[in-house]
Amino acid sequence: MAASSSLTLSQTLISRAITHHGSNHSDRITLPGFSLSTLSGRSIKSSSRTHLTVRKHRAGLGPVRAAAVETLQKTDTSLVDKSINTIRFLAIDAVEKANSGHPGLPMGCAPMGHILYDEIMRYNPKNPYWFNRDRFVLSAGHGCMLQYSLLHLAGYDSVKEEDLKSFRQWGSKTPGHPENFETPGCEVTTGPLGQGVANAVGLALAEKHLAARYNKPDSEIIDHYTYVILGDGCQMEGISNEACSLAGHWGLGKLVAFYDDNHISIDGDTEIAFTESVDTRFEGLGWHVIWVKNGNTGYDEIRAAIEEAKSVKDKPTLIKVTTTIGYGSPNKANSYSVHGSALGSKEVDATRQNLGWPYEPFHVPEDVKSHWSRHIPQGATLEAEWNAKFSEYEKKYKEEAAELKSIISGELPTGWEKALPTYTPESPADATRNLSQQCLNALAKALPGLVGGSADLASSNMTLLKMYGDFQKDTPAERNIRFGVREHGMGAICNGIALHTPGLIPYCATFFVFTDYMRAAIRISALCEARVIYVMTHDSIGLGEDGPTHQPIEHLASFRAMPNILMLRPADGNETAGAYKVAVLNKKRPSILALSRQKLPNLPGTSVEGVEKGGYIVSDNSTGNNPELILIGTGSELEIAFKAGDELRKEGKKVRVVSFVSWELFDEQSDAYKESVLPAAVTARVSIEAGSTFGWEKIVGSKGKAIGIDRFGASAPAGKIYKEFGLTVENVIATAKAL
Amino acid sequence: MAASSSLTLSQTLISRAITHHGSNHSDRITLPGFSLSTLSGRSIKSSSRTHLTVRKHRAGLGPVRAAAVETLQKTDTSLVDKSINTIRFLAIDAVEKANSGHPGLPMGCAPMGHILYDEIMRYNPKNPYWFNRDRFVLSAGHGCMLQYSLLHLAGYDSVKEEDLKSFRQWGSKTPGHPENFETPGCEVTTGPLGQGVANAVGLALAEKHLAARYNKPDSEIIDHYTYVILGDGCQMEGISNEACSLAGHWGLGKLVAFYDDNHISIDGDTEIAFTESVDTRFEGLGWHVIWVKNGNTGYDEIRAAIEEAKSVKDKPTLIKVTTTIGYGSPNKANSYSVHGSALGSKEVDATRQNLGWPYEPFHVPEDVKSHWSRHIPQGATLEAEWNAKFSEYEKKYKEEAAELKSIISGELPTGWEKALPTYTPESPADATRNLSQQCLNALAKALPGLVGGSADLASSNMTLLKMYGDFQKDTPAERNIRFGVREHGMGAICNGIALHTPGLIPYCATFFVFTDYMRAAIRISALCEARVIYVMTHDSIGLGEDGPTHQPIEHLASFRAMPNILMLRPADGNETAGAYKVAVLNKKRPSILALSRQKLPNLPGTSVEGVEKGGYIVSDNSTGNNPELILIGTGSELEIAFKAGDELRKEGKKVRVVSFVSWELFDEQSDAYKESVLPAAVTARVSIEAGSTFGWEKIVGSKGKAIGIDRFGASAPAGKIYKEFGLTVENVIATAKAL
Repeated sequence: MAASSSLTLSQTLISRAITHHGSNHSDRITLPGFSLSTLSGRSIKSSSRTHLTVRKHRAGLGPVRAAAVETLQKTDTSLVDKSINTIRFLAIDAVEKANSGHPGLPMGCAPMGHILYDEIMRYNPKNPYWFNRDRFVLSAGHGCMLQYSLLHLAGYDSVKEEDLKSFRQWGSKTPGHPENFETPGCEVTTGPLGQGVANAVGLALAEKHLAARYNKPDSEIIDHYTYVILGDGCQMEGISNEACSLAGHWGLGKLVAFYDDNHISIDGDTEIAFTESVDTRFEGLGWHVIWVKNGNTGYDEIRAAIEEAKSVKDKPTLIKVTTTIGYGSPNKANSYSVHGSALGSKEVDATRQNLGWPYEPFHVPEDVKSHWSRHIPQGATLEAEWNAKFSEYEKKYKEEAAELKSIISGELPTGWEKALPTYTPESPADATRNLSQQCLNALAKALPGLVGGSADLASSNMTLLKMYGDFQKDTPAERNIRFGVREHGMGAICNGIALHTPGLIPYCATFFVFTDYMRAAIRISALCEARVIYVMTHDSIGLGEDGPTHQPIEHLASFRAMPNILMLRPADGNETAGAYKVAVLNKKRPSILALSRQKLPNLPGTSVEGVEKGGYIVSDNSTGNNPELILIGTGSELEIAFKAGDELRKEGKKVRVVSFVSWELFDEQSDAYKESVLPAAVTARVSIEAGSTFGWEKIVGSKGKAIGIDRFGASAPAGKIYKEFGLTVENVIATAKAL
Repeated sequence: MAASSSLTLSQTLISRAITHHGSNHSDRITLPGFSLSTLSGRSIKSSSRTHLTVRKHRAGLGPVRAAAVETLQKTDTSLVDKSINTIRFLAIDAVEKANSGHPGLPMGCAPMGHILYDEIMRYNPKNPYWFNRDRFVLSAGHGCMLQYSLLHLAGYDSVKEEDLKSFRQWGSKTPGHPENFETPGCEVTTGPLGQGVANAVGLALAEKHLAARYNKPDSEIIDHYTYVILGDGCQMEGISNEACSLAGHWGLGKLVAFYDDNHISIDGDTEIAFTESVDTRFEGLGWHVIWVKNGNTGYDEIRAAIEEAKSVKDKPTLIKVTTTIGYGSPNKANSYSVHGSALGSKEVDATRQNLGWPYEPFHVPEDVKSHWSRHIPQGATLEAEWNAKFSEYEKKYKEEAAELKSIISGELPTGWEKALPTYTPESPADATRNLSQQCLNALAKALPGLVGGSADLASSNMTLLKMYGDFQKDTPAERNIRFGVREHGMGAICNGIALHTPGLIPYCATFFVFTDYMRAAIRISALCEARVIYVMTHDSIGLGEDGPTHQPIEHLASFRAMPNILMLRPADGNETAGAYKVAVLNKKRPSILALSRQKLPNLPGTSVEGVEKGGYIVSDNSTGNNPELILIGTGSELEIAFKAGDELRKEGKKVRVVSFVSWELFDEQSDAYKESVLPAAVTARVSIEAGSTFGWEKIVGSKGKAIGIDRFGASAPAGKIYKEFGLTVENVIATAKAL
């Protein structure tokens, strides 16, 4: 009885989903439910290989091709249904046990998930890091139980049955959103919406770039796809438009994105806030767009869409898959209530009955288990075949193979750091942004995996690698990436590049103040342990006339407070080189380099080694670790501290000048080292930094004084602002004397 | 000679711009230059009122209508040319004098700027705040000399000749990017790309909303347009796609955006990073799109496009205006070199010669001056007519007029704060996000200008105003705004709403961690003095299972470091009410309320008055301002401090418990007050807050101890994480004892 009424409801839901999209021809619709499952996936087979022209549902201007329909694989359909329902119930059961999580997406996306992991993707469950694997990103990360279920079925060691049972619990491998650092098999860390699809653009870029550099006419050693599932939420976020605009521009043909078009977001029907035509927008972005109208049971439609996507080599493909969120739940499907809460035991029972699922929670039927078990040997074979291919490649292309190996392994070439330039006080004064470009160009020769660029400020950020051209659609082997004015997408794309292969070292650049545009991506770099180098120039009021909208104030403090990221503010050439050394060596955390627009002298006493300790003595005329005064500066203000120290010494004072280039690195030093730089007994301390004084009490102590800027900046020549704001040698001296 | 060769160059440039866009029919092209100026604007008049169907230049799927062509106004064309060249040279001269700035955009956009300010817009130069004025936003804010020149010509007191001459200098009214708080006539603060167009969406929303609430069939008291100029940079930013998607969804028919399609960005030709079809994307977003192919001299095309835009009532309009950046400069036009640097005296001379401009720098020819002089009396008349209309309105609709007046003036209704709910320790424990909803709903009755909503988390952020429906295309009088998952656009739209009218009080909401997505907009709220209330829930690891991607850590610190913003973290009902009181009263700065997901008890001792002081004593058993120990907590951890205080008092300790709800407000108190709360002599201090300890040294001192979280969070039930991270009564007691 329950089953029959719920079938009626489900039928209503599906037909609503379809009519809602304005389809003007009547496909035969299959109904969910175990008893009917043998029908599903066959119903529209008759129209095989026909490209159907359908009306788009909103404000459409041109035709979108529906997926061609064709059976690609001869797996027994009832087993496919069973596998898909296994995925659904693993998700339902895990969320129910945790009483927390998002069952709706896994229930709706189980068909595309099944087809991807069981039929399409090439991977080796026993080595989630096999280099040439297809990449999969769940951009709608809240639906992570979809991915955990798939990894479990595929035989990944990271998601055993006990892991599913400890979903969202302390210390488990199955956290509330996919985290690459917790769960091998998850490529990236998603959850914050839109990040995943941008990561996927980075993964696809990495593939295209490395393939162009290392593939040979007789050996396509790099050749994988990047698949991503994104939802309505991802589509609304600006970051996804930024990244997808670039993907279209670059023609990333091996990027295939599934848009889970379920018309439900947390606040209800997407009609309340999201009525744009996504199809049209993606066409504008230069993507190939396919619409799978029945994502719930139209398995062959999904398969055909993937085949069509692969056949389009010069454009990324968006497959809009219309699904029912919470598919199978008789009372909650197609509503926001199934999005982010456990179904509740009553509805779980009803769903079991509706989908004809007689099993205990977390049960994987034997035939499903047996069906999926082939992926372990198949994966081993795929990797072995690739290894053999690589051996052949290595024989023919020794140099390229060695370089590629270093990229794949992430091992830094011996002596790479010797490439970094060195400076003396006699070296000409220069802006650290220019010194940064010298470092980047030097490192590019030593580090084959260094690639990057700027958000349309290459000539201001000084980030061009002079010996290379631009990575573009038709020149993908080049190493300068042009991101356009898309900071947020840039950061997330770099996360994807960094996580593609350990030896890829992406850098990206904009004005320091515009880290605000990409902060969510930077935070994920830190969380997901992606070695991205953020080259952030124009790092203070020193940029002058552009004014307060362009002048960072609180930014240094804001990143010093962020976990697992290095905030570096070098003062001159040697410190800039040191900052790059640190950034490259920190393989599991990102670095931000704050660099000056204005010229700075090369100071005696600065060093690469000093930078590695975060804070260190630059000059001192005291003995016995007992100066009368400690002056502390960072970046462009170290020069001011240095000069003030000289002046005060002329008056007979014992003054130490300390460079505080990275608070995080200093914190990690031994107590003895810290005491040797900042002896506890010396409380007369003055710091100077052209930014917020927030946090400086920790360094200067309650008896010391921090000189900084606790207001917004101003539009005027830089020297004038420095003077008006009291960032001067005179003020440091006066402040020191007042202590 | 120079003129003739440069004309040839200009011709090439224009013809390139046109063929580049794939036009397949040959318009007659007019050439720039003083001598030919009488031709311009007439050349294509013959095709009057014809809607031309042209091929779109990239991947187009449907037709875009070119602007209908019609002469709207009979101003002498040579005078128009002269006025446009005046605008160009004021920009050229100011940038040249400052040796800093962006001449390219003003030179290219001068025609549309002239037409807007001289022919189309309704404003009163002597009262830049006249309520019913048309709003103009220069989203490409670097081109601010365009706007300053126009304000100068129009007769605004904020931009006199001496202001133009002190462009980008300390203390001037003409900073490097438009700043509403410096220059009356600038509606918003732009420069960070994409913000302005999103502000404009907020301005247009405000107009539509207020018109729907207050207009009567016999009196359209609110009726203005919002115009915006945005460039390629704005178009690439994700925020603009977010905001424009909403503008399309809401059908903001009185929003007219000019897209300065000049194909140049800082890094060179936009071809290197920006090849999407903007037309197609905007059609997907639900906009009406018009293409003006000759934005350099096609004045009638521009005029006709504006007329067409106004005729489309149910959609916003994008007028793509193809221009030449730096138009008129014989050697630098159409190149990035004219974007962001002074032309240099040689090229200034060449440009003067090329455009036939014999005048001294900063000269406004008499006939141009005389032509523009009518705007002062006309503006006065417009305002006087409106005032008369309002008087009529007031007679008929007393109540509405009174309410509207309070919105226009920004005066808070007497006793508004009495609407705020009060709580006692006996009130049931509740999450501050729920208490926040009680406040919002109470305030909505008392404050007619309170409008807002959430980025698709209304039911989690608890932001719905229960007595109102949704602001939608067909129900614009309602006060709940549905932003979709578009945090960045949401923040910038709220800035626009706040700056539209002093009495509009926008609030917006998401999870606290996702302030990262909208930080650039929040910073502009702070800079531009927009009273936006940021309702940020799920403010710590207390959100539990969603895990580290959703758990803020560094966010409190990061906003405490930001100038001119209040970071408030209330602990219970009374503090939440206090936070709202503070937020409403601070008319020139935004507030962020960090609110809990989890239930919190109403503590004895908390108060609205306490919140107004930022930090205050909640409980104390010491006398003579001499406790043995001070425990300090914020938000959800105040309860822990409170309980630890109780426990320690049982052991005979003299313990003070302090709530530190807002650091900024505490900083603003007198030294005597600060000493009364945190006596300098009492160094035994322990703070507890579920966030980064960064900055807490300032409060607890070098002998105190800050308990917090200096790592990323974890996915687990909230109670478990609190325990694992040591955020417990036991740990506070143990830490206090160890001091």
